[in-house]
Amino acid sequence: MTRGFGSDNCSGALPEVLKALQEAAHGHQPSYGEDAYTREATREFERLFGPDIALFFVYNGTGANVLSLSALTRSYHAVICAETAHVHVDECGAIEKHAGCKLLTLPTFDGKLNTALVQNHLHGFGDQHHVQPRVISITQCTELGTVYTPAEIKEICDFAHARGMYVHVDGARLANAVAYLGVTPATLIRDAGVDALSFGGTKNGMLFGEAVLFFNPALAADVKYLRKQLMQLHSKGRFIAAQFSAVLKDDRWLRSAAHANAMARLLAREAALIPGVKITQEVQANEVFAILPREVIAPLQQACLFYLWDADVPEARWVCSFDTTEDDVMEFTTLLRSLVD
Amino acid sequence: MTRGFGSDNCSGALPEVLKALQEAAHGHQPSYGEDAYTREATREFERLFGPDIALFFVYNGTGANVLSLSALTRSYHAVICAETAHVHVDECGAIEKHAGCKLLTLPTFDGKLNTALVQNHLHGFGDQHHVQPRVISITQCTELGTVYTPAEIKEICDFAHARGMYVHVDGARLANAVAYLGVTPATLIRDAGVDALSFGGTKNGMLFGEAVLFFNPALAADVKYLRKQLMQLHSKGRFIAAQFSAVLKDDRWLRSAAHANAMARLLAREAALIPGVKITQEVQANEVFAILPREVIAPLQQACLFYLWDADVPEARWVCSFDTTEDDVMEFTTLLRSLVD
Amino acid sequence: MTRGFGSDNCSGALPEVLKALQEAAHGHQPSYGEDAYTREATREFERLFGPDIALFFVYNGTGANVLSLSALTRSYHAVICAETAHVHVDECGAIEKHAGCKLLTLPTFDGKLNTALVQNHLHGFGDQHHVQPRVISITQCTELGTVYTPAEIKEICDFAHARGMYVHVDGARLANAVAYLGVTPATLIRDAGVDALSFGGTKNGMLFGEAVLFFNPALAADVKYLRKQLMQLHSKGRFIAAQFSAVLKDDRWLRSAAHANAMARLLAREAALIPGVKITQEVQANEVFAILPREVIAPLQQACLFYLWDADVPEARWVCSFDTTEDDVMEFTTLLRSLVD
Amino acid sequence: MTRGFGSDNCSGALPEVLKALQEAAHGHQPSYGEDAYTREATREFERLFGPDIALFFVYNGTGANVLSLSALTRSYHAVICAETAHVHVDECGAIEKHAGCKLLTLPTFDGKLNTALVQNHLHGFGDQHHVQPRVISITQCTELGTVYTPAEIKEICDFAHARGMYVHVDGARLANAVAYLGVTPATLIRDAGVDALSFGGTKNGMLFGEAVLFFNPALAADVKYLRKQLMQLHSKGRFIAAQFSAVLKDDRWLRSAAHANAMARLLAREAALIPGVKITQEVQANEVFAILPREVIAPLQQACLFYLWDADVPEARWVCSFDTTEDDVMEFTTLLRSLVD
Repeated sequence: MTRGFGSDNCSGALPEVLKALQEAAHGHQPSYGEDAYTREATREFERLFGPDIALFFVYNGTGANVLSLSALTRSYHAVICAETAHVHVDECGAIEKHAGCKLLTLPTFDGKLNTALVQNHLHGFGDQHHVQPRVISITQCTELGTVYTPAEIKEICDFAHARGMYVHVDGARLANAVAYLGVTPATLIRDAGVDALSFGGTKNGMLFGEAVLFFNPALAADVKYLRKQLMQLHSKGRFIAAQFSAVLKDDRWLRSAAHANAMARLLAREAALIPGVKITQEVQANEVFAILPREVIAPLQQACLFYLWDADVPEARWVCSFDTTEDDVMEFTTLLRSLVD
Repeated sequence: MTRGFGSDNCSGALPEVLKALQEAAHGHQPSYGEDAYTREATREFERLFGPDIALFFVYNGTGANVLSLSALTRSYHAVICAETAHVHVDECGAIEKHAGCKLLTLPTFDGKLNTALVQNHLHGFGDQHHVQPRVISITQCTELGTVYTPAEIKEICDFAHARGMYVHVDGARLANAVAYLGVTPATLIRDAGVDALSFGGTKNGMLFGEAVLFFNPALAADVKYLRKQLMQLHSKGRFIAAQFSAVLKDDRWLRSAAHANAMARLLAREAALIPGVKITQEVQANEVFAILPREVIAPLQQACLFYLWDADVPEARWVCSFDTTEDDVMEFTTLLRSLVD
Repeated sequence: MTRGFGSDNCSGALPEVLKALQEAAHGHQPSYGEDAYTREATREFERLFGPDIALFFVYNGTGANVLSLSALTRSYHAVICAETAHVHVDECGAIEKHAGCKLLTLPTFDGKLNTALVQNHLHGFGDQHHVQPRVISITQCTELGTVYTPAEIKEICDFAHARGMYVHVDGARLANAVAYLGVTPATLIRDAGVDALSFGGTKNGMLFGEAVLFFNPALAADVKYLRKQLMQLHSKGRFIAAQFSAVLKDDRWLRSAAHANAMARLLAREAALIPGVKITQEVQANEVFAILPREVIAPLQQACLFYLWDADVPEARWVCSFDTTEDDVMEFTTLLRSLVD
Repeated sequence: MTRGFGSDNCSGALPEVLKALQEAAHGHQPSYGEDAYTREATREFERLFGPDIALFFVYNGTGANVLSLSALTRSYHAVICAETAHVHVDECGAIEKHAGCKLLTLPTFDGKLNTALVQNHLHGFGDQHHVQPRVISITQCTELGTVYTPAEIKEICDFAHARGMYVHVDGARLANAVAYLGVTPATLIRDAGVDALSFGGTKNGMLFGEAVLFFNPALAADVKYLRKQLMQLHSKGRFIAAQFSAVLKDDRWLRSAAHANAMARLLAREAALIPGVKITQEVQANEVFAILPREVIAPLQQACLFYLWDADVPEARWVCSFDTTEDDVMEFTTLLRSLVD
């Protein structure tokens, strides 16, 4: 099979991105973010989120999350997140290593935190023996393909701010959430009160590069030093910036994400019709979670890359990308049906 | 002026690199280094350095250095380096932050360490109050554009190994050194006894990406976890690998570096003819250091980006790139001459 | 009330300890552990645990735990512990900050881990995205006053070693466990296979000072540097050593602990007779956990310091010390009874 | 010889300190600094330094320095200190490990910084590649037994504050400086503008324990969490506090220090009379630095513990303590004279 459902990281790059890199590759530019491409990309982000943002390009999602959380914490603080959060599960302890912080995790059904859940970790304030809860970090869309509404994010932000805490959004797949909700990113993130955002690029058609945004520039006064020290400052800054300009322009990023979301919905719809297959999470973004008959997994994975979310159940995770086609989906579900029969 | 002499980081990318990215951008590949492009690039590195290397692609030079030194040290160790070393001067304390180590620095004239200099820090072994010297880190070519010979590196390696220490080479500009010396990288680095190498890509025509090589795989057993935790593991690994294949193939990297070196020699030769200009370091690689009349600096910098190495002297640093042309050099030296007159 | 049940940390010091400090205070001794008192204390520890131990005196329990776990891990490792473990709950994130590690916690009823529980975190081995489980850290006796048998510890150690992992015991109250079990510390700890032990002193009648023991000296080769860097090396080393000699001599430490245990049993027995009071954990060591009528808590705490373990239940924790008397217990339970009535 | 000149750390404890510990050892007290002894010691410090100080007891000098500097910095900051500073030379890289900071060192003749020297490191402000100079850390008295005047400290503080920087004083031997100068500690430290002070106890007759003071409590708002996380919070806080009360009361600390200073002056005066012996630093506090004939060193060290400051010269360091007697000095210098002859 040409394209699998392993991860949107398995996809390549958008033609617009490649074209932008070609154009940006000529001539000299000041390095380390002083270039014209970075200025242009900054304007694109300001168009999305409004003025007075502090914007930092970084290499990858882990870098974006570590930079965000390092800026918002000291080592005796704690970050509250879902048990399934990428920062907890998939970053090999990067937050603990770099920020020094403890992650306080919460079990959820659908990957989404809420204020009632968060409340479970809100104790020990002022007690020198306890880490001090400082940041609520949520993933939008979540690791389970679910999406917070603007109201849900706002509630978390209001709750946090009332307690002197901050909210960070891991938006590695923010595009998919925005495309699903049909709201502006400003409404969803900035107006809701989010303090720091990891804005994904790689998973949505770029070769590399993510962005970190702070909506209160005072929080970001020293972030440039942190970014450098955290090995996230690219010398040839134009090559992240030019990609972002290419995807943000004309909402290319949202059309890509909307397409991936549509493919995931199609996949879920088709798979749900197959006996023994059970879709376990509402498909709001570009991921499908499905319980499968155990015996189909091996032959299915042989034909097409995907991962098991929970090998015990067994429950599979299928991710669609900007380049997933209807044919990919139909070929895959046809195979799955044939294996089930 | 189209192209300045600020840094090889100000240059764009080689056409071969762009072409390789175009070709690699299609279809799906397993992420995180399990892809076919990474396998191919690994073969290119094995062609250069021989088999049984442990190879890790990372994002940037600081990442390469931090990964190398983190793998070779614990927090109570020390790294010995030149006072001018990039790891000491230009990485915003990244080594201290991530490895926890102290850097023990040594003043040099030309950026090059030798065993007599290193000896000054070789005390306190076994003393619990003192950091334990563990790694000698040298830059090849140095921050002053000078080049260690294979014999010089071997002497440092033998010296280190006799004391239970390791040698790391920051090779952000290794290409320029190899091109200058006309030896193979295996001879210069591996055969000389180097333990860990930061192999530069970005400064020599790539968009992004560096490599870290360990020549004793036992030292690298756990480096994959370190790389991930240090935020240096790229999800779409093909995009670093494909660039490396493109530059390593047919020695494209060496031809680029040789060209940059030649341009630097031309620049030094022309500049040296100008009254009041004094070249302060032998030009072995792609950098020229020159004392200038103070009054020409502002107008020269206005026309063309470059940095002062030492504003007090004043001494300028001019860096040539793969895309520097003879016309660039002549235009620049003509302007300089006109300003002097 | 003269003495409360807040913590064994609220007690003072044993007369033998004070006498030993008096005697050790005269004359000069080499500093930093090269003194005669340290040699003598080392012999006492060797008497308890056998020869070929690597012994390090430190200041406090957090220091002992951080030193132990730092020696056994690198930053990409994980430490598995109970959700109630002191290292997780009461050390303000010290493990995360210093070792860089993630703590993987497990809910328990009685504070005790077992291999079936630990198994829940034993996945992701070899996966670069996941922290690598490396150490199982148990507390003996636990934060809930319960005690592991030698067989239980041995099972955990065998399980760990079979997977290339280590076992650390936080023995801040080890004395109470040894006194309860009536076994030798060698049997309970070393013979069971424990790799590193935090051996408590402060809670059992010393002014300050704890010890860290490694039973495989190879694991401890560099620990002296770690201890210094972790700010746990005392200059006037004699003053920790002399205290340890005083408490270890003639099993003074065990008699103190046995007394505290006996007082806890008495307290539990008396309290259990009071209507509305429910003892929630078997009293094996010097701590009593009891559900109380909510209305008695404030007046009881006003008369006598103790802490609530769980304010929601409400469940109190009462800790007995080497200097708790039967009168203290009877006075306290009499008051409690009067408040209930 | 009963008492050597190795270090004031080789001395034992003052009788007043032992008596205070005896008295403090009885009964229960709240732990972790909530006890009556801590309140009393706080009043003693307020008597010395004035009200509105933020005071934190810690275990040792390295802990005091790390806590001070951690409170004043983030990881991308730099601390400027003398090349001979204890924080740089004798703490096994603790600052780098814990604060993450780079130490920028300066060579001095007598261990004393001044603003002209510091100026050498004051560049790179605002440059993301460079660590940001944030704290000037001086040692009072210095590692070379020299003493800053109040005017010298004030000049450094004014200089620092004018640049948005802080000043930390490592006062492990502050008593000796205060005794030498005959000024109040408030004049010398607080009025001069110092931001954070490590106030030594151990070297001046205590068993263990140091204090950290911040004179702007706003800087110390979160230091209690740092202290706990840095393993420097003592559970039985009374035992540090009671010692401090004992030494601060009636200026016992200054009389001890004055005595040690006097013994050092006597030692220097006597030694200077011996042929071939050259005192190399003015003796202002309790340390003597002397060049000796090489052949006397081994036999002298056999009779009496002391360390070489510079084995190449060779230059010895002799330290006097609160318990050094005139007889000790005369016995030592008599022996030295006999060895020279």
